[in-house]
Amino acid sequence: MTTETQFARFDSLPLDSGETLRDLQVAYETYGRLNESRTNAILVLHAFTGDAHAAGIDHDGKPGWWDNMIGPGKAFDTERHFIICTNVLGGCRGTTGPSSDEPGAGRPYGLRFPGITISDMVRLQKLLVDHLGIPRLLAVSGGSMGGMQALEWAVAYPESVEACIPIASTARHSAQQIAFNETGRQAIMMDPDFAGGDYYGGKLPARGLSVARMVGHITYMSDESMREKFGRRLRNREEFSYAFEVDFEVESYLRYRGSQFVGRFDANSYLYITKAMDYFDLSADAPSLAASLERATSRFLVISFTSDWLYPSYQSQEIVNALRSRNHDVTYCELSSNYGHDAFLVDVGEQTEIVKGFLGRCQREFRGGVACK
Amino acid sequence: MTTETQFARFDSLPLDSGETLRDLQVAYETYGRLNESRTNAILVLHAFTGDAHAAGIDHDGKPGWWDNMIGPGKAFDTERHFIICTNVLGGCRGTTGPSSDEPGAGRPYGLRFPGITISDMVRLQKLLVDHLGIPRLLAVSGGSMGGMQALEWAVAYPESVEACIPIASTARHSAQQIAFNETGRQAIMMDPDFAGGDYYGGKLPARGLSVARMVGHITYMSDESMREKFGRRLRNREEFSYAFEVDFEVESYLRYRGSQFVGRFDANSYLYITKAMDYFDLSADAPSLAASLERATSRFLVISFTSDWLYPSYQSQEIVNALRSRNHDVTYCELSSNYGHDAFLVDVGEQTEIVKGFLGRCQREFRGGVACK
Repeated sequence: MTTETQFARFDSLPLDSGETLRDLQVAYETYGRLNESRTNAILVLHAFTGDAHAAGIDHDGKPGWWDNMIGPGKAFDTERHFIICTNVLGGCRGTTGPSSDEPGAGRPYGLRFPGITISDMVRLQKLLVDHLGIPRLLAVSGGSMGGMQALEWAVAYPESVEACIPIASTARHSAQQIAFNETGRQAIMMDPDFAGGDYYGGKLPARGLSVARMVGHITYMSDESMREKFGRRLRNREEFSYAFEVDFEVESYLRYRGSQFVGRFDANSYLYITKAMDYFDLSADAPSLAASLERATSRFLVISFTSDWLYPSYQSQEIVNALRSRNHDVTYCELSSNYGHDAFLVDVGEQTEIVKGFLGRCQREFRGGVACK
Repeated sequence: MTTETQFARFDSLPLDSGETLRDLQVAYETYGRLNESRTNAILVLHAFTGDAHAAGIDHDGKPGWWDNMIGPGKAFDTERHFIICTNVLGGCRGTTGPSSDEPGAGRPYGLRFPGITISDMVRLQKLLVDHLGIPRLLAVSGGSMGGMQALEWAVAYPESVEACIPIASTARHSAQQIAFNETGRQAIMMDPDFAGGDYYGGKLPARGLSVARMVGHITYMSDESMREKFGRRLRNREEFSYAFEVDFEVESYLRYRGSQFVGRFDANSYLYITKAMDYFDLSADAPSLAASLERATSRFLVISFTSDWLYPSYQSQEIVNALRSRNHDVTYCELSSNYGHDAFLVDVGEQTEIVKGFLGRCQREFRGGVACK
């Protein structure tokens, strides 16, 4: 199926920072059909650098980032469900972000864009879901930062979420996760072409953004998957260069992925979205994570992967334990995979069966607009 | 004790690349006294950014990098042993490296310095050990890159090594280890102030070097130790900045360590030494790691740490298994620590006892110049 990105506009969005954004646009795609009772809608939430194009093939022939999970007969079955995916607030793929024109200013926001949070992203998604006339989502689901948004949905809008499926995610960013993000931000901001964020129309901070992406890629893979994919294989050579050319396959791969990223992602969006992740702590305003999840009335399916060292299983288990301590309906699966954090995107065999089974139950037992636990 | 760095000069050093370096200098320090039979010498080998100042206090009041391991009554006991530590080839702390003046050229080598390997570093150390009149070292020991050098010593000069103690190290760099190093190199080389390596006397590539060091620091700590040290604590503030100021303690720490590093380390040395590590593969010229270790006649003590994810225990176990398969004398200890890769530098309680016991046996059973297994 060829997919079409659609756009919705909203007048204003109050932010956690106290500021208000005016005149916003949200990019979204939908797959499948909304049923008459409006009880089959699933909101799929993308990870850090994803976008609204989650499934199908776009006009450039590019498949969606979760095309292996969304479609006829897949985990999110377009024969049965109506799937929505939006680009996040602060992004650079159609939804308002730092590269958007600031209303009335005649130039992009740049660093004048206000700081944002995961909860701000979700607040904007709620406007869209209301706009689409959906009183209660069958499910919210995403991996990594998508999982954070799913958790935030369950807590912020319990009456609107039947089921919550956070995958390879966390209830709060750890010091190590903040540290990796901060390294990427520093790489970008130290690039002289960054120009205080006002690089639009000029030279992009390509070097800094590329280095940031290289660090990211290492954290998305596992030691094992890098060994399997690259090992110590040399790249187009028999002997070491004894210089700083590309010697190893893995060097070539990282350089390529870094430079390729520059063409599709905005450096300011990198800064804003990583900060939103770092700020994320579901338990910040409550005595405990369990207390903060008290409001949630969804059923939960929590998934993690054995070789994911960026969002390790213990972070998912914290969520599960907190939910169980308050008698929430929660299923937890730690799946075996060598693919590291990328597993939720690429190693979806078991994940598909588990999500399917869980969604089947949630659909059978859908509780309408009633908030009950 | 106040220590003094000494220097030795050598005419030439043939390198693995086929090139020859002329007119070299080696910086070294010694602690304790060489006994009359010359059987109590231990060569201590530093990690990536270390130097010859391993113990005691230098003229600036700075303690050596392994001062908790070297001294009277410590693991490397200066009452009993004669300890030598040299700055590595390619370094920037007194031994010839890319920041040294190229003979006859009237300017530093920069990127005209030839590519080097761990084995080149060890070859230069052997010149110094010969120069000091020591036929056989009681032990060679170091952590991380120091462990690689120790292993190389045991294989290249079996007749000169009674005991080999590689700690938190590996017999070959993995794809993930290469990937982290390559990210640091790219950060440096992309800094416009890098100027093709000819930045001496001008503006240093401080931004790139600082980002490289930030990545390094994350890999030296563990998820646990970062949580214990920083958690999600804010730095001198009660609320989020909603901007790109320092919000979290961990951000402040990384920025500080990055900028501090620029003052003490040369960017070109960063490039050359990381490449030497990436090239390191003890098994490269043999059918197996066991076969490549065949030549070694030392006793081995191999140590790794549970939370070290940069040089994980399985890499030490590969060495141990290879040695055991050929009936070498090998002791292996995996020590419990939360400190990650840094453990060999900072969490030395158990390490001290184990090294002490092992060295006692090696000293009692010292086999003179005889190479036997």
